[in-house]
Parts: sequence; C-alpha cells; structure tokens
Amino acid sequence: MSTFGESHGAALGGVIDGCTPGIEMPYEAIAAQLARRRPGQSAISTQRNEGDSAEWLSGIFEGKTTGAPIAFIVRNTNQQSADYEALKNVYRPSHADFTYEQKYGIRDYRGSGRASARETVARVVAGTLAEAILKREGIEMCAWVSAVAQHELPFANQQFTRSDVDANVVRCPDAELAVKMMAEIEQARAEGDSLGGIITCRIDGVPAGLGEPVFDKLHADLGKAMLSINAVKGFSIGSGFEASRMKGSQHNDSFVQKEGKIATATNHSGGIQGGISNGEPIWFRVAFKPVASIAHVQETVNQRGEATELSVQGRHDPCVVPRAVPIVESMTALVLLDHLMRQRAIK
Amino acid sequence: MSTFGESHGAALGGVIDGCTPGIEMPYEAIAAQLARRRPGQSAISTQRNEGDSAEWLSGIFEGKTTGAPIAFIVRNTNQQSADYEALKNVYRPSHADFTYEQKYGIRDYRGSGRASARETVARVVAGTLAEAILKREGIEMCAWVSAVAQHELPFANQQFTRSDVDANVVRCPDAELAVKMMAEIEQARAEGDSLGGIITCRIDGVPAGLGEPVFDKLHADLGKAMLSINAVKGFSIGSGFEASRMKGSQHNDSFVQKEGKIATATNHSGGIQGGISNGEPIWFRVAFKPVASIAHVQETVNQRGEATELSVQGRHDPCVVPRAVPIVESMTALVLLDHLMRQRAIK
Amino acid sequence: MSTFGESHGAALGGVIDGCTPGIEMPYEAIAAQLARRRPGQSAISTQRNEGDSAEWLSGIFEGKTTGAPIAFIVRNTNQQSADYEALKNVYRPSHADFTYEQKYGIRDYRGSGRASARETVARVVAGTLAEAILKREGIEMCAWVSAVAQHELPFANQQFTRSDVDANVVRCPDAELAVKMMAEIEQARAEGDSLGGIITCRIDGVPAGLGEPVFDKLHADLGKAMLSINAVKGFSIGSGFEASRMKGSQHNDSFVQKEGKIATATNHSGGIQGGISNGEPIWFRVAFKPVASIAHVQETVNQRGEATELSVQGRHDPCVVPRAVPIVESMTALVLLDHLMRQRAIK
Amino acid sequence: MSTFGESHGAALGGVIDGCTPGIEMPYEAIAAQLARRRPGQSAISTQRNEGDSAEWLSGIFEGKTTGAPIAFIVRNTNQQSADYEALKNVYRPSHADFTYEQKYGIRDYRGSGRASARETVARVVAGTLAEAILKREGIEMCAWVSAVAQHELPFANQQFTRSDVDANVVRCPDAELAVKMMAEIEQARAEGDSLGGIITCRIDGVPAGLGEPVFDKLHADLGKAMLSINAVKGFSIGSGFEASRMKGSQHNDSFVQKEGKIATATNHSGGIQGGISNGEPIWFRVAFKPVASIAHVQETVNQRGEATELSVQGRHDPCVVPRAVPIVESMTALVLLDHLMRQRAIK
Repeated sequence: MSTFGESHGAALGGVIDGCTPGIEMPYEAIAAQLARRRPGQSAISTQRNEGDSAEWLSGIFEGKTTGAPIAFIVRNTNQQSADYEALKNVYRPSHADFTYEQKYGIRDYRGSGRASARETVARVVAGTLAEAILKREGIEMCAWVSAVAQHELPFANQQFTRSDVDANVVRCPDAELAVKMMAEIEQARAEGDSLGGIITCRIDGVPAGLGEPVFDKLHADLGKAMLSINAVKGFSIGSGFEASRMKGSQHNDSFVQKEGKIATATNHSGGIQGGISNGEPIWFRVAFKPVASIAHVQETVNQRGEATELSVQGRHDPCVVPRAVPIVESMTALVLLDHLMRQRAIK
Repeated sequence: MSTFGESHGAALGGVIDGCTPGIEMPYEAIAAQLARRRPGQSAISTQRNEGDSAEWLSGIFEGKTTGAPIAFIVRNTNQQSADYEALKNVYRPSHADFTYEQKYGIRDYRGSGRASARETVARVVAGTLAEAILKREGIEMCAWVSAVAQHELPFANQQFTRSDVDANVVRCPDAELAVKMMAEIEQARAEGDSLGGIITCRIDGVPAGLGEPVFDKLHADLGKAMLSINAVKGFSIGSGFEASRMKGSQHNDSFVQKEGKIATATNHSGGIQGGISNGEPIWFRVAFKPVASIAHVQETVNQRGEATELSVQGRHDPCVVPRAVPIVESMTALVLLDHLMRQRAIK
Repeated sequence: MSTFGESHGAALGGVIDGCTPGIEMPYEAIAAQLARRRPGQSAISTQRNEGDSAEWLSGIFEGKTTGAPIAFIVRNTNQQSADYEALKNVYRPSHADFTYEQKYGIRDYRGSGRASARETVARVVAGTLAEAILKREGIEMCAWVSAVAQHELPFANQQFTRSDVDANVVRCPDAELAVKMMAEIEQARAEGDSLGGIITCRIDGVPAGLGEPVFDKLHADLGKAMLSINAVKGFSIGSGFEASRMKGSQHNDSFVQKEGKIATATNHSGGIQGGISNGEPIWFRVAFKPVASIAHVQETVNQRGEATELSVQGRHDPCVVPRAVPIVESMTALVLLDHLMRQRAIK
Repeated sequence: MSTFGESHGAALGGVIDGCTPGIEMPYEAIAAQLARRRPGQSAISTQRNEGDSAEWLSGIFEGKTTGAPIAFIVRNTNQQSADYEALKNVYRPSHADFTYEQKYGIRDYRGSGRASARETVARVVAGTLAEAILKREGIEMCAWVSAVAQHELPFANQQFTRSDVDANVVRCPDAELAVKMMAEIEQARAEGDSLGGIITCRIDGVPAGLGEPVFDKLHADLGKAMLSINAVKGFSIGSGFEASRMKGSQHNDSFVQKEGKIATATNHSGGIQGGISNGEPIWFRVAFKPVASIAHVQETVNQRGEATELSVQGRHDPCVVPRAVPIVESMTALVLLDHLMRQRAIK
C-alpha cells in the first residue's frame, strides 16, 4: 500500500497493490470506518466536514477486485488555505513544519501538508479492504479508547464489539469511564488545550504461525505500523512496559489444553511469542500525545529564528484519540494481511 | 543487513550489503561491544563462555571496507545440545518452541534455534560498524539500564558516556540505584526467577531532516528495530506513554533560539517531529520482559498436549537487560545509518 | 514509481515516491513526450484520440516538487467498451486475456484491462520527470527506431537529437531507411497485418560508477525495465547477441587516454563493465514483436475451449515501435535516476 | 537470496531467506551442478581446481530445511593472488577493474574481487535448492549451449535432458555441431583468444498464472536474472529479436485445444503472454560475450592513465559458455520459485 496527498492539495489517495482477486468490495464497511474517522461526527470532535468519499479509479470490475492495483482518491473539498497563510513563516510547536523544511528545503505550508492527519483517510480505505479479506479467514479486530488523560481502563481479556465501542462518542466501552473522559475533554476544549490517550486493540482468530522470527516479528511490524500514525508516542504488546516490573514466574504464560487445543493459561505475551502468533488473542496498546494544535498562546520562532507568539486557530480536536480508533484497526489489518500472505507463500 | 544461524548450529553470522566503501574496520570497537553483550562477563550474568569472535569472510581489503558485501561468522563452540534433548517434545512457556513448530511444521529443538538471543551477536557486529560510520558524521549514541523491576531512573536530559554506563555491572549510571538493582537481581537468581527492565537510549548529533514523513517515520523504524530484539515488549519515543496523560500546553516543545540555531525549549518529542529528526537529542525507552528461562518449576504441555512439569536448567541470566545495552545501541546505529543514506539519496 | 489503471477504467495514473524536492516541474517536456507516445499522431498510428493530459494530485507546491509523493491521473475519456463486448469469452491470440484469467480467476475484458499499453502513459509521465532531474547532472538520452521488419540501421556510435528522430513519423533518423520502413508499415496496414521492430537507445553523460556489481547490474536493471514494456521480446547491451560470434581480441574495449581522461577505444561493452557504468556512452537495443491485434482472421478458442474465429477490429497500430520511443527513454531515465540515488547514498 | 565473497578472499557464500521448511536438502544435486560449473572439468575449461564444496552453516536440521535462513560458504583454497600483483595498477580491458575503482574509490585487485565468476558458485547452490522445490510442483528446466561463435542450433521445440546436454563437454546436444564448436574453441585457445556463445533454456511444467502484469513480468525478471550473470550481453524470450522481422499474422500463437486443455498451436511467445505464464514451455536465449581474459597482448592504460601493454596470464577458459549452463538453470529456478511464492500469497 502506498499513499499520497496533502491536506490542502487537490486530493489524497492510495494505491493497493497485490490484492487478492475476486474480493467483493466492502464499500459499506469502508464508508462506516471513514465515518468513524471523520471530523465533525460529535460535539467533541472538530467541526470540519471533510466529506470523505472515496473515488475508485482502478482494479475493480463488476464490484470485485481484479488483482490489478486498486487506486482511489478522496478530493479535498473543504480547504481553507487562507487559515494557514499566517503560519507561512512560523514553526508551530511540536508540528512537522520545521522538520519538513529541514528535510526538503521546501515546505507546503497549507495545513500540515503531507504531515496532516488527513493522510490517514487512505489508510482507513485500504485497511478496511484488508479487514474484509481477513474476515473470510475468521480474523476479527476491535480497538477502543482505553485511556484519556488519567482515566484508564485496564486490559483484562475483555472482548468488545464495535457497537460496544461506539456506544459513546469517546469510544470507551466502559460507560462510567466514558463520562469522565468526556468531561475531561470538554474542559480541555474550554481551556483551549488538548489531551492525549491510549487505544487498546484486540484481534481474535489469528492462526498460530504468522510473523517472522527475527527482524519482521509480528509485533515489530505492528509496532512500526502504529508508530507511523500521527501523534503516536508509544507501542506495547501484551504486558508491555508493565512486564519490566514482573518476575519470570509471574509473566510466563503456561501452556494448557483447552477444548482439545494447546492454549496458554494467561496471555502476557499478547498472543505473540518469538515474533510469531500463538493462536491466542493478540492485544496491544498505542499511546497518543495531546494534539499539538491548541488555541493556547504559545512561544515559538519564525524562519529567521526570531521569537514570536502563536495561537493556532482553525478547527482542531481537543482529543483525537476517539477518531484514531478506526485508523488503529486499519493499520492492524494491513499488517496482518501482509503476514498472512507471507505465510501462504512459504507453504 | 541480514543475519543467519541458530544457537546450536555450526555458526551464526550476517551479511552487510551496501556499506560505504573505504571505512577503516572498527575491529576494536566491535570486540568491545561483543564483550558487553557476552554472557559470563559478571557475577550477574550467565556463565556460558561464548567466545564471540567474528571471522570476516569478505568485503574487506587491507583493513578497509570495499563496498562489496561484508560477511562474517561466529562459530558456536560451547554447545551443549544434550541439555536440550529433554526439551525436545515439551513447549517451554513464553518461549518460541510452540510458535516455530506451528509456523514451520519442524523445529530445531537444540537451544532456542533461530529464536536464541545468540542471533543478536550478528546485530552487534553490524551495528558497531554502522556506528563507526555515523561517528564520522558526528552522531553518537549511548544506552543504559534505566529500570530493573521497580527501580527506575527517570529521563531528565542526562547525557552519559559508555564509561559512566559500564561503571557497574548492571549498567545503570546512577550508582545508588545500581546497588538496589543488583540486590534485586541476586535475589531473583536465588529464587530461580528472573526480572525485566527498561533501557533508555540517547543519540546526539543527528542532523535535522532524517526520517520519512509517513510509513517510515524515524521513530517507527527505531520502534520496529527495538521490538525485533528478543524479550522486548514495548517502545516509546520521548514522552511516550506519559504523553497520554499530558495536556498539549504542557507537551508542546516551544521553538527557541539557542546559540544561533533554532532549537526546542523542552524535548518531549524525543528529537523527532512528524517522523523526522529536528536536531535535538533523540531519546527513547525499550521495555524488556523477564527472561522466560527460569529454574522455577512450571506447568506446561508436551507435543501431544499432555500436561507436564518443567524446570529449565542450563545457564541463564536472571536479568538480560544489562547485556542488551549494546544490542539497543547497535540496532539504533543500523536504523540511523539507513536513514542517513536515504536522505543523501534524495539530495 | 508505481502505476495503476486499466485502459477502459475510470483513469490510470502513477505515484512517484522519493523524488528529489525543489525540482521545477517539467510540464512542457511531459506534454511533449506524451504527444510522442499518443496514438493518432500520424497516418501510420492508430486514430484513437486519447488526449492524455495528466492531472496532478499531490507532491507539487508552487510548481516545484516538495519531496512528498507525486500522484497523477490521466482520465480515460475515449472508451469504447462496446467494442470489446464481443471479445468477452474469447481469447485473443498472443494477448494477455488467457493468462490474466488463469492468474486471477477474473478478467476485466474491456480493452486489454491492465495489460493495455495505455499503462505506459504513467511511465512516460514519471520518466520525463526523472529525465529532468538527470539533465541537471548532464545525463541525456535519445532513442530511435533502428529497425522495422528487415530494414535495419546498425549502431555505429551515432549520436542523434530528438529533432533528428522526429524528422519523420517512423522515428528512424536515417531518411532513406525511414521511407522504406513507412512503405512497409503502410503495406502491413493494407493487409490487416502488423510489424515489429527494434529501438536503439543511447545515453550520454553518465558518470562512471553507477550500477551494482552483482544482481542489480546497471544493464540488468535496464533490461528488466525494457522487458517490462508491452510487446518487448529481447534486450541487448552494447554488442549484444553479436558478441556471441566475436572473439575476445575483437570484443575487448582497450583503455586509452582521451582528452586527459581514461576512455575506451571501442564500445562493445555498451558503456557498462561488470554491471557498472564506465563513463562511455551507454547504448542498448530493444526488440518489439509485431502487435498482436490484427484485422486478419485468426483461429482461437473461447472460454469453453471451443474453436472459433476472430478478427480484431478496433483501432490498432500496424507498428507500435515509433510510439514506443518515448517509453524506452522514460524507462531508461527511471532506472538511471534510481542508480544515481543509490550511488549517492553510499558516498 | 544474497551472496557475498570475492574470488581471492577467505570464502564466498550466500544466504537463502524465506525457504519453504521441511525440504529434504538436495546435497547430491547441488554437488552435481557445482561439478558442471567447476573449472577444470574438461580439456576445454580452465585447469584451476576450485574444489567447490559448500559448508552449510544454518537453517538445516536433520537434513531438512527449517524455514530459518540457510547460510553456506565455499572456502577459497586455490588462490594465487601473486598472479594478480602485476595487475594492481593496470586496468584489464573489458573487466570491471576500472569501474569498481570509479564506483568505490578502492579496489580489491586480487583476481577480479567481487566481479569474479566465482560468485556464481553461490547462485548454483541456492538455485539447485530452488530447483528441488520446483520439482515437487512438476516444474523442470534444462539449458544447453545452442551457439558457439558462428555454429548455432536453432530452437524448434526440442526437449533435452541433462544427460543429452552432458553427452559432450561443450554441452550442445547436437553431436555434429558440438564437434565443430569444440574445434573452434581449441583453435581459440591455441591463439590465446576466447569465444562467446548462446545458451537456450527450456522450462516445462510451469502452471499458467505465474508472473506479474506490469513491472515484474515473468520474462522481465528472467531477463534481469540472466543479465546479472557475468559476460551476458543479451536476453530474449521466445521469438526474441527475430520477432522484430515477423508479421503479426505469423507471430501470433493461435489458441487451440490439446488433450482437453487450452494450449497454443505455436510458441513464439515463449510460454509467457502479458508477462504471465500461459502453461506452454517457457524458452529463452542468453548471449555471452567472449571472456575478457585472453593471453593475447592488449593495449590498455594504468591508474595514471599511461598507455601500457598487457597479456593476461593465469588459467582462463577460452569459452565459458558450457560452464554457464548450470548457472542459467539456477538463476531460472530462483526466479520461478519467487514467482510461485508470490502467486501463492495472493490466493
């Protein structure tokens, strides 16, 4: 999968190469996931209306994939580049303005250009197609918001559905916690500030044997995929950072027999051992920083290095984490499908 | 870089392709880093004597790299395969025995085969060569043990040298904490148990502009590299999981002018913004689980799924984290050199 | 570079990733090369009017490349899918109908789908951009038709310009031969038949040192690129197949000094030795088969394996070789730029 | 597959990654193919005794592949580096001496370093393993010398076995032609000169559907693989360069029904249409230049650009083509296995 496009260019999109042929295009699922990613879906998300509807250019015939590259674009319709003219010579703190300019010697200062979270639209489109293929193999995934600021829902082998998750706008399937999170987000918005959070993802039905043993360990590829999402600062598989405080005798997952199959009694491994899936549910956590665009007045410098002040106007989420849920699911699907295909190739 | 070899096969090794020609081979630095990785270096590490000395097969002429692939092997001399005969039909908990067998339908049960941490010898050899090339560009890195069990040294922009780090066998540059960590490790050993921990790595001198903006973000590639190391369960860049509890106004790194250059006042970003280095020190954390091989009696099943008990004898570290320090440094060097070369290519 | 799109789908296009930033977009050169590739440019080429004008979607800001992926699409406007309804269940001889169906189990029977030469539009767009970057380094390339049927212009170190080549519609810079070729093509058209031919390409200004020594030899990558063009059946570098009839003493290119530089007296090597450019002009030949779509009545089978007759109507060139000249140049530019970037990376 | 090693370094070898697990190692077949590649096997080949026996380092357990990387080395035992001291500052015509030095700024002048045909030992080892896997799928290949100098055996759908091919030392299965070729080679040797030739390869049993439709066409990858072999100057699939002189009505391969299957009446396509195998035998030709090392006195320059004379002593074949037969077969096997695995991945 490759993606292209800037937030304020003509369009963004992607090309999916090497897709299994003969797959019924999951147009509805794609629309549903795009709707979950879209800004403006609730009071707590930004009011931009991006109207993300994909235009399919190739690789599909009579509603099915043909095996040829599938290209799609999403037009950028609601661009307000003028919003950004003021930012032309100023580096927004913790944005990619400065680093892009250092890397390329040139910067598209409209919106965040290529660094915009708009790019993730293409990931959701491709990932939802991947998910449809995985479903045929019995692999299903569900992600949810497990923390906003200090409010955290620990993982205890819960299995949620997307309706559980979407029961509230903050996408935390614990109703009480969700109320607290929403209040916290509302307060941040009122203060012109932003909040971070954590997403937990669980995947069921992954057969044992996916993942490569050394560099391309399954959780290493999942980690890379998650860390490639905007605003992500950390990734952990299974027990994660807590493992660093545990003893081997506590952490080891004993093998047992369950319903005639070899299984593990606990799942600190997160469903992956030695880089390869063991047939247990895979689960991992992804940490998001608070979004960098805030109304708060901040100190920064301009291109000449002179100190200046900045207050980012425009329409920005105080907490992007709920909208990132379908992105996490989509990137998960892309990684799993890739490893499923690799495993088929050697058999 | 590609690696090969099992812990109890004839040899393991690696091939480094695309290396800059004309580099003086850093034989001493490689020996030094291998010595830091080696088991048996101190009372707290395993007493196997692996005598890791690399044999160079190609790509070097008159002490310099020629640009041709550099191949090296390290013979496995101290193999006690007999130790493992008893494990032939039993799955050790939280090892890769079960998953390898599921993936390949065949398993080399001597030692951990390909899943053995012996494989990281090749990474240290290649990484130290990469480090030598990076040093010519003014890029230097240093990792240290920042946590063992509950004892943790928070990151506060400290800059350590390798002598600071090697001042004690636990490789924690805080002398007081190191004493506590060592006591904890000794106790775990006495109990036939094992401990996890955290390594923090800091890199100085990275020019702004390294890293790709979307899928191959610099921290995504660093994360994948770290998660590919045996026993790693989590990775975080800069503020990491703590970012999920911060507000945007706290977390954003203001741009300021320092000594005539644009810099940031704080460094929650960990030296990377939008996936691209910003010229500040890069820092990240890597969480290790407690090693799975413990003398404790554990419950498991054999290949027929029958319950059995297991106590892993053999010579194993109660805490591998100190020995993982040069591995973290080596993987860091490989990722950075790769991105340095990518950046040169587009200029 | 990746491409997508079928001849009769919504659009075709490509994505160019990793492009040098700050390059002035060569819009005119792209239009010029597309015009040379376009059907309907002369009496001897097909009368379809594809109106290939690229729509640029991303990666360009204020007329310059930004370093972000450059996506472009070309709409398919002049589709006559009805032409193809009759071919739905029949395999056209020496087309890809049968093989696509075998590979994917599904076939887009409109036009030739993904196998259509329309796909090369994307190659010409990307290749011309690559050419613009190469020109800044003093690298220039020119291809011409050196054979149609039995009429052949041997290579004798001639250096032609594109105006020389475009002096006649057959794109053979030898005026007399061109007249014979045109007559041959006219006759084939009259007979409802088609002709093959050869294109020779010469590249000047390539610095010594491009190309990898083993698998990715410069001429191996050029060969792969040429063989990936529709209808190509052979590739040879320098002396090519004639080398098989020569003696070493004839074939070896003596080194000599020319104008203070080390050069070769002859150039049977075609500018590449041991897979690496030696600073001499690079030259190679590409053999094209006669186009498979002919009006002649042919025998074939349908999907049920029943014998049937077929006469491909529609608008097809009796000889595609003249239109393939800019495609050869474009693929050459992509390969050279790739190797130029690889060489920069190791320095 | 990656390879490493110079002709006069410690060893050369390769690493095969991603090999199907559970394959019985074809040790005998590998030894047999190495013997066919080895110098000194007959009066017409060089008298060096390379004693190529592979040492296996990893990826094999109890005689079977485990799925882990398979590394092997072949020691260089019969090195006479002193032979080459005289060549230290001189560029041998049509060798890679000059280009390596231009590329890397450093040159291993012993033998031809990395450019030596010794590197192909690793290809033969890996390729013969690939061949063993392909055989299980019913895919078999056989290459032969179809031309030496002006003596040529045209392809007319002949199917030969390796015993047919090895019936004479020149590996041309036409006995009469073989005699002429041998006489020609003997004469070249007597004159201190060398000869080129052509190898034809035929593959049977390839299922329809292998190969990618655009850049990675099956014949494009075969072409690249062949062009990456030392001394190869040209590649053609099926009708090849002759196609450029044919008419569409002659060249098109009509579909017919044969024994209940869809087949083609002729096979100008060489078993590949639109880049994808069609189930017919695949056949292609590879042109080799006369070997560059000749005893003839030649003019050249030294590193300072001064004219000098050179007569390459040492032990070199007057015609390497017979020894290249197993190399062509091995590279063919590697490409086909790669595409077989790609095809499995999408199913």
